[in-house]
Amino acid sequence: MEPEAEPVHEDELRDAWPALSAQERVDGFHLLPPERARDFFATLNAPAQLGLLEALSPGERGTWLRAMAPDDAADVVQRLSPEAREAWLALLDAPSLREVRALLAYGEDAAGGLMNPRFVRVRPELRIDEALSYLRRQAREQVETVYYAYVLDEAQRLEGVVSLRQLFQATPDKAVREVMRTDLIRVRDDTDQEEVGRLFARYGLGAIPVVDDQGRMKGIVTVDDIVSVVQAEATEDIQKVGGTEALGAPYLEVGLPAMLKKRAGWLLVLFLSEMLTATAMTRYQDEIARAVVLSLFVPLIISAGGNAGSQASTLVIRALALAQVRLRDVVRVLRRELLSGLSLGLVLGSVGVARILLWQALFHLYGEHAFRVALTVGLAVLGVVTWGTLAGSMLPFLLRRLGFDPASASAPFVATLVDVSGLVIYFTTAELILRGTLL
Amino acid sequence: MEPEAEPVHEDELRDAWPALSAQERVDGFHLLPPERARDFFATLNAPAQLGLLEALSPGERGTWLRAMAPDDAADVVQRLSPEAREAWLALLDAPSLREVRALLAYGEDAAGGLMNPRFVRVRPELRIDEALSYLRRQAREQVETVYYAYVLDEAQRLEGVVSLRQLFQATPDKAVREVMRTDLIRVRDDTDQEEVGRLFARYGLGAIPVVDDQGRMKGIVTVDDIVSVVQAEATEDIQKVGGTEALGAPYLEVGLPAMLKKRAGWLLVLFLSEMLTATAMTRYQDEIARAVVLSLFVPLIISAGGNAGSQASTLVIRALALAQVRLRDVVRVLRRELLSGLSLGLVLGSVGVARILLWQALFHLYGEHAFRVALTVGLAVLGVVTWGTLAGSMLPFLLRRLGFDPASASAPFVATLVDVSGLVIYFTTAELILRGTLL
Repeated sequence: MEPEAEPVHEDELRDAWPALSAQERVDGFHLLPPERARDFFATLNAPAQLGLLEALSPGERGTWLRAMAPDDAADVVQRLSPEAREAWLALLDAPSLREVRALLAYGEDAAGGLMNPRFVRVRPELRIDEALSYLRRQAREQVETVYYAYVLDEAQRLEGVVSLRQLFQATPDKAVREVMRTDLIRVRDDTDQEEVGRLFARYGLGAIPVVDDQGRMKGIVTVDDIVSVVQAEATEDIQKVGGTEALGAPYLEVGLPAMLKKRAGWLLVLFLSEMLTATAMTRYQDEIARAVVLSLFVPLIISAGGNAGSQASTLVIRALALAQVRLRDVVRVLRRELLSGLSLGLVLGSVGVARILLWQALFHLYGEHAFRVALTVGLAVLGVVTWGTLAGSMLPFLLRRLGFDPASASAPFVATLVDVSGLVIYFTTAELILRGTLL
Repeated sequence: MEPEAEPVHEDELRDAWPALSAQERVDGFHLLPPERARDFFATLNAPAQLGLLEALSPGERGTWLRAMAPDDAADVVQRLSPEAREAWLALLDAPSLREVRALLAYGEDAAGGLMNPRFVRVRPELRIDEALSYLRRQAREQVETVYYAYVLDEAQRLEGVVSLRQLFQATPDKAVREVMRTDLIRVRDDTDQEEVGRLFARYGLGAIPVVDDQGRMKGIVTVDDIVSVVQAEATEDIQKVGGTEALGAPYLEVGLPAMLKKRAGWLLVLFLSEMLTATAMTRYQDEIARAVVLSLFVPLIISAGGNAGSQASTLVIRALALAQVRLRDVVRVLRRELLSGLSLGLVLGSVGVARILLWQALFHLYGEHAFRVALTVGLAVLGVVTWGTLAGSMLPFLLRRLGFDPASASAPFVATLVDVSGLVIYFTTAELILRGTLL
C-alpha cells in the first residue's frame, strides 16, 4: 500500500525521476516552489543529488551545495573525479569547506564518513535551565539534532549525553553533570558502518556519538541516516549471495552495459571453474561407457550437494554479517554443520534409494544391478550433502579470516565448488560398490 | 570494532545471554542494579524478553510487564499460547490492557502491530508557548517521543505535525496551526512493515504516524524501532534466497532439530524436483550410450543456466523488495533480461566452444566430431543461459502476482528448475546438430 500523503507535485517528480533525462529533471526541479524544492532535494540519495547538481548551472550548484549538511555534501563530492572535486569544493564557504574536507578523509563505509560534525555540545557545569535555553537557540542553527546534547570536557573529550527529554524532566537548577548519562554507546571514527547499523538495531538508539582515538568527539550519526545504510548493506549481501557483484544502484537505474559487466565477471569465473566438471567427467568416461546408468544421476547428486552448500553458506554469511556468529565460533559452527550435513544427507540419501528401487520395481529401468546402483546413489548423496554443508559453512569463515567479504561465498560459487568434488565422491563410491558387477 | 562503552555488567550479561540457561539468566538479571536492569530489559528483543519473563516469578513478571510500552508488551504476549496469553494480560492495569488488546488485533507485520499508541497530541488552535509547556509536562509521561506532537481535530483525524524543534524556532504567540506541516507521510494501520521500512529509508524520517481507514490517528512508529525491522526483513530474504526457510532467530540460538526442520523441507522439495533430471537423462540414455562425450558436458551446461538464473532472480527479488521495481515493470524487466541473457549466453557459449576446440587440439579428447560437439555445447549454453536468465527474472514476478513471497524464487530453486529444462535444451540441440554423425 502507498502512503496516503497528499498528492503533491514533488512525489510525482520523485516517481518519474528514474525515467527522466537530465534536462527534464532540472526542468521538473525548477517547477517546485522553493520550500518543496528543499525538501525534495534533501530526500534524494547521494547519486541522485550528484546527477542533479551536475545538470544545474554552476551558480545554482553552489547555492544548493552550500545549503547541504556537511556529511551530505561530502557524500556527493567524493563521487567526483579529483579535478571536479576541487572545483566543487571551491564553491563552499570556509567553515563548511573545512568540515567537508575533514569528512572526505574518512572511508565512505566508516562511521567518520557517515557522521555530521554539527552537533550540540554543552559543558558539564552548565545548569539545566541554561542548557535548555541554549538548546532552544541551537534549534535555529544547522545542527543535526537538538534532541541530544553532548557533554564535553575542555579537551573535547566526550563525558556524557543528556536528552532534551531528560532536561525537561529535571529540576532547573541542577547541573548537567548530575543528570547526564555516562555509560553511553559510542563508536570510533574508523568503525565500519555495518557495525554502526548493528548497534542501532541492537540498542534502539536515536543517535550515536563518534569519537577519535583520543576520545575526542567528532560528530554524530543519527538513526534516520542508518536505515538506508542497513538496507544498502543487506542489498549488497543479497546480491553477492545470488552470485553477482553488488549493483550499487537501483536495478532499473543501472545501464545495461554496466549491469552486464557486473554479472558477466562472476558468471565467467563460475563457468571456467565448472569446466573442471568436464575434466572430472572425462576421467570417468570409461565407467560411464560401461555403465550409462551412472550418468543418469549425475545432475541429481551434484545439485543435492550444491543446494545443501548454498543453504549452509547463506545462513553463515548472514549470521556473520549480523555478528550473531564470530570467527571464534568456527568450531561450534563446524560441529553443528557436520551434524546437520549428516542428518540432511541421510534423509535425502534414503529418499534417493527409495526412488530408484521404486522405479525399478515399476519400470525396470536400471538393469539387474539396480540395488547396487541405488546403494551407490544413496551413499553418494550422503557424502555429497555432508561435504557440501561443511564446505558451504566453512567457506565464509575462511573468506572473513583472509580479509575478504564472507558474502562472496555465494550460492552459485559454493554449488560450483561442490559440483566438481561431488563428481569425485560419486564415481569413487561407484567404483567401490560396483566393481566386479557393473564396472 | 566493538563500541568503546564502559565495561558494564549489563554488557557482559548480554554477551553471555545466548549461552546461559533460563535460571542463570534470571540470576544474572537479579544481580543488576534496578536502573541497569531496566535498560537491559528494554534492549532485549521480544523473544528474549519472553524467555526471561517466563522464568521470573508471576509477581515480578507482572511488574515488568506493566512497565513495558504497550507495543513491546503486545510483541511479547502475542508469542504465547491463547491460554497463557489471557493469564499474562490479567497482570496488566485496565488502560494498558485496553491498549495491548487493540495492538494484538493487528498482524505482527503490519504498521498497527509496530506502533506505540502513546504519542503527544495537540489541538491546532493551541499557542506555541502553550504547546511547549504541554510537551514539557508530557516528558514525564510514558509517551514514545516528545520530539514530535501530532495535531488532531475533534474526531482524532490527523491534520499535521509539529516538531519540538519547530516550536523552539517559532514565535511563542503563534498558533500551532500556523507552523505545523500538513503534507506529512502517514501510513495506514494495515500497511506492511516492509513498506514502512522503505518509507523511513527513503525520506529519512524520525517517526511516521499511523492512521486507520477513517484517517484517525492510532499511534506512531519511530525510526529506532524500524532499524531492526529492516534488518530482520533483509535476513529473511537472504535466507530464502539461499534456499532455506527464514530462521526467525539468531543462528546459534536455533536448536538443531528446529534448524534441520527449516532446512530439510526445501532441500527435500528440491531433491524431489531434481529427480526429474534422472527422468530426463533416462529419456536420453540411448544418445549417451552412443556418444558418451555428450555426458561430459552435462554438469557444465546445467550449472551455467542455474548460475545465470540465480543471478537474475536475486536481482529481481531485491529490486521488488525495495520497490525499485513493481509488478507493472514486468515487460521492461523481461526485455532487459532477455538482452542480458542473450549477451551473457553468447559470452559463455563462445568460451565453451573455445575450450573444447583448444582441448581437442591439445589432447584429442573428443573424437573426430569435436567441432560439432563444440558447436552443440556452445549453442546449448547460449540457450540455457538465456532461458535461465528469463526464468530466474520472471519467477519472482509470478510469485508476487500469485500472492507469494518473491524471495521464495531462491537460487537453488531456480537452479533446479533450469537443470531439468537445461537437459532438454542440451539434448535437443545435440540431436539437431549431431544427427547422422555421432547420433
